[in-house]
Amino acid sequence: MFRLVVVWCILLCTQIVIAFGSKTRHFKWEVEYMFGAPDCMEHVVMGINGQFPGPTIRAKAGDTIAIQLTNKLHTEGVVIHWHGIRQLGTPWADGTASISQCAINPGETFLYRFKVDKAGTYFYHGHFGMQRSAGLYGSLIVDVGDGEKEPFHYDGEFNLLLSDWWHQSVHDQEVGLSSKPFRWIGEPQTLLINGRGQYNCSMAAHFSNSSIKQCKFRGNEQCAPQILRVLPNKTYRLRIASTTALASLNLAIGSHKMVVVEADGNYVQPFDVDDMDIYSGESYSVLFTTNQDSSKNYWISVGVRGREPKTPQALSILNYRPTSASKLPLSPPPITPKWNDYNHSKSFSNKIFALMGSPKPPKTYQRRIILLNTQNTINGFTKWAINNISLTLPATPYIGSIKFSLKTAFDQKSPPENFSEDYDVMKPPVNPNSTTGNGVYMLGFNTTVDVILQNANALSANVSEIHPWHLHGHDFWMLGYGEGKFSKMDKKKLNLKNPPLRNTAVIFPYGWTALRFVADNPGVWPFHCHIEPHLHMGMGVVFAEGIQHVRNIPNEALACGLTGKTFMKNEGN
Amino acid sequence: MFRLVVVWCILLCTQIVIAFGSKTRHFKWEVEYMFGAPDCMEHVVMGINGQFPGPTIRAKAGDTIAIQLTNKLHTEGVVIHWHGIRQLGTPWADGTASISQCAINPGETFLYRFKVDKAGTYFYHGHFGMQRSAGLYGSLIVDVGDGEKEPFHYDGEFNLLLSDWWHQSVHDQEVGLSSKPFRWIGEPQTLLINGRGQYNCSMAAHFSNSSIKQCKFRGNEQCAPQILRVLPNKTYRLRIASTTALASLNLAIGSHKMVVVEADGNYVQPFDVDDMDIYSGESYSVLFTTNQDSSKNYWISVGVRGREPKTPQALSILNYRPTSASKLPLSPPPITPKWNDYNHSKSFSNKIFALMGSPKPPKTYQRRIILLNTQNTINGFTKWAINNISLTLPATPYIGSIKFSLKTAFDQKSPPENFSEDYDVMKPPVNPNSTTGNGVYMLGFNTTVDVILQNANALSANVSEIHPWHLHGHDFWMLGYGEGKFSKMDKKKLNLKNPPLRNTAVIFPYGWTALRFVADNPGVWPFHCHIEPHLHMGMGVVFAEGIQHVRNIPNEALACGLTGKTFMKNEGN
Repeated sequence: MFRLVVVWCILLCTQIVIAFGSKTRHFKWEVEYMFGAPDCMEHVVMGINGQFPGPTIRAKAGDTIAIQLTNKLHTEGVVIHWHGIRQLGTPWADGTASISQCAINPGETFLYRFKVDKAGTYFYHGHFGMQRSAGLYGSLIVDVGDGEKEPFHYDGEFNLLLSDWWHQSVHDQEVGLSSKPFRWIGEPQTLLINGRGQYNCSMAAHFSNSSIKQCKFRGNEQCAPQILRVLPNKTYRLRIASTTALASLNLAIGSHKMVVVEADGNYVQPFDVDDMDIYSGESYSVLFTTNQDSSKNYWISVGVRGREPKTPQALSILNYRPTSASKLPLSPPPITPKWNDYNHSKSFSNKIFALMGSPKPPKTYQRRIILLNTQNTINGFTKWAINNISLTLPATPYIGSIKFSLKTAFDQKSPPENFSEDYDVMKPPVNPNSTTGNGVYMLGFNTTVDVILQNANALSANVSEIHPWHLHGHDFWMLGYGEGKFSKMDKKKLNLKNPPLRNTAVIFPYGWTALRFVADNPGVWPFHCHIEPHLHMGMGVVFAEGIQHVRNIPNEALACGLTGKTFMKNEGN
Repeated sequence: MFRLVVVWCILLCTQIVIAFGSKTRHFKWEVEYMFGAPDCMEHVVMGINGQFPGPTIRAKAGDTIAIQLTNKLHTEGVVIHWHGIRQLGTPWADGTASISQCAINPGETFLYRFKVDKAGTYFYHGHFGMQRSAGLYGSLIVDVGDGEKEPFHYDGEFNLLLSDWWHQSVHDQEVGLSSKPFRWIGEPQTLLINGRGQYNCSMAAHFSNSSIKQCKFRGNEQCAPQILRVLPNKTYRLRIASTTALASLNLAIGSHKMVVVEADGNYVQPFDVDDMDIYSGESYSVLFTTNQDSSKNYWISVGVRGREPKTPQALSILNYRPTSASKLPLSPPPITPKWNDYNHSKSFSNKIFALMGSPKPPKTYQRRIILLNTQNTINGFTKWAINNISLTLPATPYIGSIKFSLKTAFDQKSPPENFSEDYDVMKPPVNPNSTTGNGVYMLGFNTTVDVILQNANALSANVSEIHPWHLHGHDFWMLGYGEGKFSKMDKKKLNLKNPPLRNTAVIFPYGWTALRFVADNPGVWPFHCHIEPHLHMGMGVVFAEGIQHVRNIPNEALACGLTGKTFMKNEGN
């Protein structure tokens, strides 16, 4: 009994310390379009408070973030999704138009108020139309709470937010994707590191045979590269997140090894790599030690994987002080592994395990949903579909229409749990026709759900692409990857011992990916390919759970569509 | 007594005939972006049901128009204004974002239901951001009711909707106008007639010394010119409306005189002209007789006035059957009067009088509002201001915030009725500073209001521009124009005898324009410069009258901003 009281006391004290240590961090943000030159070419970009990328949020685990977001766009709505934050108790703050809230109208302000409960490397981005591609993104870094410690040591840290950039406007890209005949957005013109890239020059021009000219920077140009200034013989943490619209990336630091220690805001069993793959929607922390010749500088290179690259590497400089930052590295930048060397990618993914002591998955699932992704044509439009349904989001956010049983707001029929057994994932679809829909997978509250993502051949023969799928509202256990069609036999290959917790799962070409999560977070949560045009083309599904426990949805989140129409009571009109 | 009964019977019968003859015309429209080539160069345009310009509405006086407008844009709201329709009893259908309704959100449908009570040449266009410039417009033609007759004869008619076109996207234009330093949109690349123009070729190249190449058309190209096919010795009605974003225009038909018979949906005393000026927001009907050599074709030319033209004339062909339409006219196109020959413009405006028998204005005004327009700088941004206030529309539509007395929704202070007496309209502003605001001129219901629009010098010396001001919800009597600052003496020059009814009034450089209307239409009505970037820069005011009589505003029109927040009653949330 006495022991119990002591334990109780300790627990209580911890809670009090956390409560006193944590605080609410207030921000006032305005989203607007502005002129910028992220890759040295002028373009309209989406900015926040005049900044592109948006301001970095830095908080401590347990803090509450309160962002008053004002939409200063002229005709477009806007929302911001806090990628990797589970929104426990605040599902209306997830920032997904048509799902968790009505888009914020021009001139209006919405308060995003949510807790960042877990230390890690996160980011935020637009989640309406293709506004993420337009530049609406930034970093969200959560440090450990006061008195807590990271399970690894480092002397300093850097933050690299990776993205890709097009010279065609996002508005025009959207029209092309929705046109008959279909117009694909093509490969990005430039890769950006912290919103900076070089299109019309290269820092490594002298190593290349092409006619591109050598960049000359004073350093204060918007497209001048990020310089990482380090001291010799120290250990640094590099936080890396990818918010690319399309590109799968690979990052390497010339002559330096990296130790991966965090993935998607969860600690992993540390492992060494020379280079690392990162897919859109993922974040990592790696440690590196400045144990090389300190009279030299080194490249940090980011190149394209998974698609035949037509975009040059992005480059940053690792600058050993007191060497001048303008002294270029003497060797060429690290070579990005061949784009279709998928074994290299899989080898990296298969090295990721949860740090010892991390939460373990339930031993069995209660529901298993198998999601086949196929490329299709619907009335001549090119789409992506899941189990033959291409997601088209409704005008009324699900959070309101499900909670208040507005049955005409979306398809009431649950989407399929599986696909036809005789579907050949290795070949183009025999019947590429499909349908659009917006039905919801209603998940039993607190049930354990397994999802098998099944890749397939696209419309063209011998094409199957990488898709990084991001789940909102949860971390899931990444149970494993496999080749071909998932079968009963594959069940044995799943890792239930130390699977890492993630929020983004990649499916490799012609392969499957298995994950497990507990549907314990009341809300409506999309699960979708994080490639912006793929989501735009319907590549996603919607999960809902415990909606009866969702309370206090702000009125502004519901003042559109059917919820707006139904709940407007303006007596005397 | 018997006479009275007879009169009453006749009146009743007329009403019954009108009621039986009139009908409700239903339309289902979808607004979307699409690829087009209005001037032979591909560009994204706003279309309705896949058409650019949007479909022409044709109705009879007394009909009800019911348009279910669905927003198929990805992230932008949309509204459509029915330019020239007074919206008697349906002020919420005027289609002005922030004023008469909340913008229609993506995926949502709004029902515009209103009566077209008066025959005439009208048009419709977007009224949110600069969506009109993006191509959201079309014609609205109201014929006389059954059994009614036009006060002039014609054998056939044509409809020409004039506009101007830029290769820079409207989104980028908006950013430029709101940037520091200010970036002006420049002159249009092309003038369009019914959405058709030629940028990279000219039909009259052989008459010009420039190197532009001769157009070759099969006729079915999107940018092929409109051909007006006529028979000899007939009289045709040409309906002309201008929805330009910027350009003031002049139209002429080679070798043909025109007789002006209608202006802004009101009959005028017929008068002859060789060419006619038309400002953005105006519409006219002219008659012409095909009394020329029928073995030839003739140009219809449209050129720029009021700004130094950098845009070639738009050309159409008047084709005398059975002459081939491909036979080009033998003379060069009519020469547009010199851009700054304002006497020519004034001479045209001063010829317009109401058709005999038209309603006459009240003899005196009860309130006079003098509106000085000035170009200003506010915190380094370039703006237009009226009596030193630059209009910035609120997030909550006035129709709701005024009706329900939501006092924080907009500036409660009434804007000034006049400007400082010592302001020198002939010189750049001594203090170019100004403020933004969104106050409303509350007009006593049924009062007679005079407005004096006062032009002035812009920011640069020796610059004063033409501004065509459009009033919503009313026709006004155009009482007169004058030079310099309006003074007491000018009162005598006003035409109270036969002023034409209009909905758009031009102010000439350094001049004033006087108009009168009766505030008898319950609603909120903007009055603004119809030049799209000028309105965007704040050049407008808002009138409100008889709001207590506004009834049955659709919920969807109020489900945004403060009305949305205030009237959402979702019990059980």
